[in-house]
Amino acid sequence: MQDKKMVEQITSMEVDFAQWYTDVVKKADLIDYTSVKGCMVFKPAGYAIWELIQKQMDERFKATGVENVYLPMFIPESLLEKEKDHVEGFAPEVAWVTQGGLQPLAERMCVRPTSETLFCDFYKNEVHSYRDLPKVYNQWCSVVRWEKETRPFLRSREFLWQEGHTIHATFEEAEERTIQMLNLYADFCEEVLAIPVIKGRKTDKEKFAGAEATYTIEALMHDGKALQSGTSHNFGDGFAKAFDIQFTDKDNKLKYPFQTSWGSTTRLIGAIIMVHGDDNGLVLPPKVAPVQVVIVPIRQQQEGVLDKANEIKEALAKKGMRVKTDDTDKSPGWKFAEAEMRGIPVRVEIGPKDIEAGKAVLARRDTGEKTECAIDDLPETIEKLLDTIQKDMLEKARSRRDSQTYTATTKEEFDRLFAERSGFVKAMWCGDVECENKIKEEMSVTSRCMPFEQEKIADTCVCCGRPAKKLVYWGRAY
Amino acid sequence: MQDKKMVEQITSMEVDFAQWYTDVVKKADLIDYTSVKGCMVFKPAGYAIWELIQKQMDERFKATGVENVYLPMFIPESLLEKEKDHVEGFAPEVAWVTQGGLQPLAERMCVRPTSETLFCDFYKNEVHSYRDLPKVYNQWCSVVRWEKETRPFLRSREFLWQEGHTIHATFEEAEERTIQMLNLYADFCEEVLAIPVIKGRKTDKEKFAGAEATYTIEALMHDGKALQSGTSHNFGDGFAKAFDIQFTDKDNKLKYPFQTSWGSTTRLIGAIIMVHGDDNGLVLPPKVAPVQVVIVPIRQQQEGVLDKANEIKEALAKKGMRVKTDDTDKSPGWKFAEAEMRGIPVRVEIGPKDIEAGKAVLARRDTGEKTECAIDDLPETIEKLLDTIQKDMLEKARSRRDSQTYTATTKEEFDRLFAERSGFVKAMWCGDVECENKIKEEMSVTSRCMPFEQEKIADTCVCCGRPAKKLVYWGRAY
Repeated sequence: MQDKKMVEQITSMEVDFAQWYTDVVKKADLIDYTSVKGCMVFKPAGYAIWELIQKQMDERFKATGVENVYLPMFIPESLLEKEKDHVEGFAPEVAWVTQGGLQPLAERMCVRPTSETLFCDFYKNEVHSYRDLPKVYNQWCSVVRWEKETRPFLRSREFLWQEGHTIHATFEEAEERTIQMLNLYADFCEEVLAIPVIKGRKTDKEKFAGAEATYTIEALMHDGKALQSGTSHNFGDGFAKAFDIQFTDKDNKLKYPFQTSWGSTTRLIGAIIMVHGDDNGLVLPPKVAPVQVVIVPIRQQQEGVLDKANEIKEALAKKGMRVKTDDTDKSPGWKFAEAEMRGIPVRVEIGPKDIEAGKAVLARRDTGEKTECAIDDLPETIEKLLDTIQKDMLEKARSRRDSQTYTATTKEEFDRLFAERSGFVKAMWCGDVECENKIKEEMSVTSRCMPFEQEKIADTCVCCGRPAKKLVYWGRAY
Repeated sequence: MQDKKMVEQITSMEVDFAQWYTDVVKKADLIDYTSVKGCMVFKPAGYAIWELIQKQMDERFKATGVENVYLPMFIPESLLEKEKDHVEGFAPEVAWVTQGGLQPLAERMCVRPTSETLFCDFYKNEVHSYRDLPKVYNQWCSVVRWEKETRPFLRSREFLWQEGHTIHATFEEAEERTIQMLNLYADFCEEVLAIPVIKGRKTDKEKFAGAEATYTIEALMHDGKALQSGTSHNFGDGFAKAFDIQFTDKDNKLKYPFQTSWGSTTRLIGAIIMVHGDDNGLVLPPKVAPVQVVIVPIRQQQEGVLDKANEIKEALAKKGMRVKTDDTDKSPGWKFAEAEMRGIPVRVEIGPKDIEAGKAVLARRDTGEKTECAIDDLPETIEKLLDTIQKDMLEKARSRRDSQTYTATTKEEFDRLFAERSGFVKAMWCGDVECENKIKEEMSVTSRCMPFEQEKIADTCVCCGRPAKKLVYWGRAY
């Protein structure tokens, strides 16, 4: 009975998805709440996922020539105010520092909600000639946005992220980098997180404060809601003009350079939970699982069992797998439930009878499937199994996403889909913000993106009936 | 002439050490100043050193069972105030957030100057039974202390660091962890940064606000000033009592647990500069050099030269070395000076004549020594050379440190040493804070530590003549 207790305390996702999510983040030991309202503690199991994301994303960044830097966490108010759209977008949600030590500050400073203004201030010092271009910089840090309602990983007052900021001699080069980084995010989500995404451009209504164009990757969660999972912005020369950054080009003329920024956050952990999780808890893709294999000894007090378990552990670790033996004094059933809750991709069960037969039992977290495997073959078999799980999880997520993606050609159809189902709805749009506003007001649905892969599913806007300009993915979003 | 310009702009360390330091951090492209007073930008060359420090230190942490976490950057005032000594130590130098979004906060919060109070708040939720102990956590983050005078890497209002926070069932276990981490820091400084350190305990006057005992590693800079390079604190059960953290022990009794914390910061980069640098700029130990080998092609426009340079680069990279070819259109002399300024440990010079003879020239940054090497032998030779440089730099630094370490048995001797020379002075101390105060007032000298390796060089206190209790390292400090 007690063995199942851990699992029984989780709400079923069918019953209450929001509560299921909260249960998983707590029971899988990812986070803790704190005395600091709207902020959270990343516990070891949660932070370790972020470390694996960081490491693998950073390697991909560096392979494209990105260099890491670190800029101050404070922005003087006068600096934040230099670019009009930007300050309008962010000023209402920043935290203000007004006193340093025992003295009030002459000018108050906000804790960075994002660092475009600081990078501009920096680039103004650094960029004078075409020889100084491009700069392709990134920083890993935390930022603060004073949100009213918060949810672990999805929306918190402080969150961890990376923000890339680049500066280029031409618009074309900036645009190329903007798209390159969006593609990098998309590949990362699919190949590392096993999360399929739709790549596209945001409408003007939804773009970043100060950007000329914002591109996004949109993922679909288990409950049919969309999650914006990474964005890449082309600023044109708007920030350069606001901050008066100029460079002498090869033709000896003074010109304004072009800038981009792109970011992804600890929201990605929320996406992993809501795309892959199930009623037994977390399901982690092997590439971001802090523990990829757990070995559970059965009758571990019997001589030779723990030794064999540790022998297997060493053999797997030698092949580079992240593996641990659960030799606590809990019952095997409890250990199984706990390993499932924590989303460990593969469980190895080994007891006296197995050892005698030279075998072990392998259990997959994603499918629950159990197979037998000769002990000697474990390293090779599990290594392949982890690859298979990684691929299968992506395909499973893709199938579900596709089955929750609908098309609508009339407003009636569109409204009925969002009334009865949840997921993406593809529909044509005239390009007018009025239609976006109307749809949002009536159905609480927003344009997620204008996908790169455009189709023409109708000639007219799904909302107003005028000639359509773009196919848009619509959805309810986190 | 122009080739030397870069170098000529550096002040000699003999002429003005402080100016030399500022010149190096700027000319080696490590940092930039910003519009945010007292804060700095870590440029790619500076941040890359920090990344290498982080990676290698984090591996050592994890090998001792440390788990990484992330706690909020804000501390509500009521939380900061819970431990008396702690708040007295830090309240005068914190930055206060008083407004979130458009509303004033009900309770102001400071940006963390250190996170003992947050960890206590967290542990209060997490620790209930002896089964929950120990917790051995660490976080990599930035902290803020509102310093009045700032210097790059050494003292800035925001700086990057790691802070470990652990909690244990017994005082002995906490003490063991405190010393273990101090030893880890000392080994790291010697083995990775090539910086020899003195390990010891701080006097009560110099210990951390709220600690029962503070241990330190102290390094000696080129100018004879000391730099505290890492500290480890044993808090006893003081914080646990202030925060009312209790656990049920095996004997079923409620007890207060024992805590430690330990930290090291981007100051370490300042230490690298001031221990190893010379009048040509930075000298980086190979283990933290973002670029370990630079290949400078001579007459690079001549056919085959750049190809050969890149071939060598590939061969070195394959062996895991961090290497780049400088194929810019600057002159070789300029490139040499620039590579020296940036502290790159090994330079390879290769031109048409060398290629014909199947040779290349190797230049060591630390000694300036030049040797010839067959092109085919370069990977193996340079790999060994980097090891040699790493070891030689430590020995050189140790010799200099030893030659700048003096002993004094009388106050006259003591004062004369600090008047005429700079370095560590070893002298006996009675244990009374009055003597520390007097020495500080008269000579601007502080007790750096009571070294683990105690010697008895006299029977009486160097200051008051009463019976001596401890040998102390004294020095002027950054």
